[in-house]
Amino acid sequence: MRKPKKLINDKNVVAREQFEGFVAAMQIDLEPISQFTCAIRKAPLNGKVAVFTGGGAGHEPMYGGYVGEGLADAVAIGDVFAAPTPDAIFETAMALNAENGVVFIYGNYAGDNMNFDIAAELLEDEGVRTHTVRVNDDVISAPMDNQKERRGIAGALFVLKIAGAAAARGDSFEQVVAAAEYALKRTSSIGVALGPCAIPRNDEFNFQIADDEIEVGMGLHGEPGVGKSPLSSADDVVLDVMSKLEHEAGLQAGDEVAVLVNNLGASTQMELLIANRTVHRFLNEKRVTVVDNLIGGYCTSLEMSGWSISLLKLDDQLKSLYQAPCQSFALRK
Amino acid sequence: MRKPKKLINDKNVVAREQFEGFVAAMQIDLEPISQFTCAIRKAPLNGKVAVFTGGGAGHEPMYGGYVGEGLADAVAIGDVFAAPTPDAIFETAMALNAENGVVFIYGNYAGDNMNFDIAAELLEDEGVRTHTVRVNDDVISAPMDNQKERRGIAGALFVLKIAGAAAARGDSFEQVVAAAEYALKRTSSIGVALGPCAIPRNDEFNFQIADDEIEVGMGLHGEPGVGKSPLSSADDVVLDVMSKLEHEAGLQAGDEVAVLVNNLGASTQMELLIANRTVHRFLNEKRVTVVDNLIGGYCTSLEMSGWSISLLKLDDQLKSLYQAPCQSFALRK
Repeated sequence: MRKPKKLINDKNVVAREQFEGFVAAMQIDLEPISQFTCAIRKAPLNGKVAVFTGGGAGHEPMYGGYVGEGLADAVAIGDVFAAPTPDAIFETAMALNAENGVVFIYGNYAGDNMNFDIAAELLEDEGVRTHTVRVNDDVISAPMDNQKERRGIAGALFVLKIAGAAAARGDSFEQVVAAAEYALKRTSSIGVALGPCAIPRNDEFNFQIADDEIEVGMGLHGEPGVGKSPLSSADDVVLDVMSKLEHEAGLQAGDEVAVLVNNLGASTQMELLIANRTVHRFLNEKRVTVVDNLIGGYCTSLEMSGWSISLLKLDDQLKSLYQAPCQSFALRK
Repeated sequence: MRKPKKLINDKNVVAREQFEGFVAAMQIDLEPISQFTCAIRKAPLNGKVAVFTGGGAGHEPMYGGYVGEGLADAVAIGDVFAAPTPDAIFETAMALNAENGVVFIYGNYAGDNMNFDIAAELLEDEGVRTHTVRVNDDVISAPMDNQKERRGIAGALFVLKIAGAAAARGDSFEQVVAAAEYALKRTSSIGVALGPCAIPRNDEFNFQIADDEIEVGMGLHGEPGVGKSPLSSADDVVLDVMSKLEHEAGLQAGDEVAVLVNNLGASTQMELLIANRTVHRFLNEKRVTVVDNLIGGYCTSLEMSGWSISLLKLDDQLKSLYQAPCQSFALRK
């Protein structure tokens, strides 16, 4: 049986050590919040609404990589695949001095929901206004009529981009919230896994999958999708995924989209590019225009092999926010 | 025995299909050169010296991802881990209409050297001036007194960045060549492999490595390094690599460097960040300043697990070229 193999130090402190490596890379732009794997931007808000993201470690460069100009102002990272603590979120948000409120944007997982909600209550007690946007872009994880149960995957990047741009141009709290929720409504994602990942503390992979199988719809921590299916051709799988996304997004000729082909971890970039080729063929045939196309490891699941595709259906309002400049470790426009 | 697992279509045309996916992602900025996996920028040179890069497929986003403003003007990609043909290089270079010459920058491998040299001769016959810079940044692959035998790895990105910036600001042919050669002289890299990769056409991985072993100094196609060593801690391995790089680069207190911690393919971004933490600790202790820090899959070896570290030792001249703006698929500044 194949075993996980990682080049790390103490397996119990990987989240902190990787965060130190991240903060070192950012250097002048980030202020770590003591005791926690949390940080805020050094640039003062100057009245801007604060955008706050976070979640478990193991999805690098999500979330810390998206702290920066025109994106998030703060991040709280938990242990591997575990939510940040309420204290960590609270103290980080307090350090922002966000007089015009804090908009939380994170993936819809029970642990994150609970801890961010507790922190939000503590913040409200301190007079800090908050609103929470739970990203639930994984359309396979629950049916359309039960969207609240859907999990979050790589589409969080689109929601952060839009909310960050709205906040950066000086939108009000209500406007930033509305922009984030509107972006989320128009973001759909599906992941496809070929191989498992392993939390460093565990000596086992988190699921088993045969050499000739894939799982469409698998979540960021190995949550089940629509079940195993045979490893067929990239074209077949991409066309299946795109048909589902087209249906979800209600795509029509003339629509414009941003496309993210995201590496879950260990896939070759060659496979992402081959998938991307078919994404374009599908959308060209539907006369849907690709306005922007990100390809790479934007939201990973440790060393999981596979990819996800996310679509953000644009309109004039979203397009202008999407195309606004941003500067962060993992996304620059 | 574990087998390679990839989500592709026809294994014989992966290089072309991934290139189509790449060109689709770039959309308006690239003009593919027919019959080949080659492309040039659509922006005319307007007297600028042309920078031309390329090599085998399988190192995505190297090389195509670095075609863009302030970087390369053209790229020729071969089959997986195989050089582009002389015809492909020649026709692509001719399509540039480079009246002020073409500077070839690519990794030092026998196949690439041969095919680019043949193309350069054909171009000289047509009156197109060329110069070749063979990137040989892998300091493990041959001793210091035999640098011409050293292979190229991720440090090609630094050389391309400097040459591209020199060309973009209007430097002469001689000046662009000098900048590229100077950057190369000050670029040192070492790779560390944990797991193998597989050319899609093969059903076997390209080397064997035990679960408790790593190989320091392994090349981009699985070429041997200094032999297998035990899988120890990230700190031990990084400090060993950094000591070697420090010695190569002749680093001294007060020096400034750009640092690339590059994913060979399947490593978690968490491992890259943990390595990066130790890179900074090492350099801080030596009072060497990190001016820029790239982390991610910039030059991959398909799904090889492991990373490489590259240093570019800056001075005022290189720093200004390094920090000049650039716009490409895989690097934006």
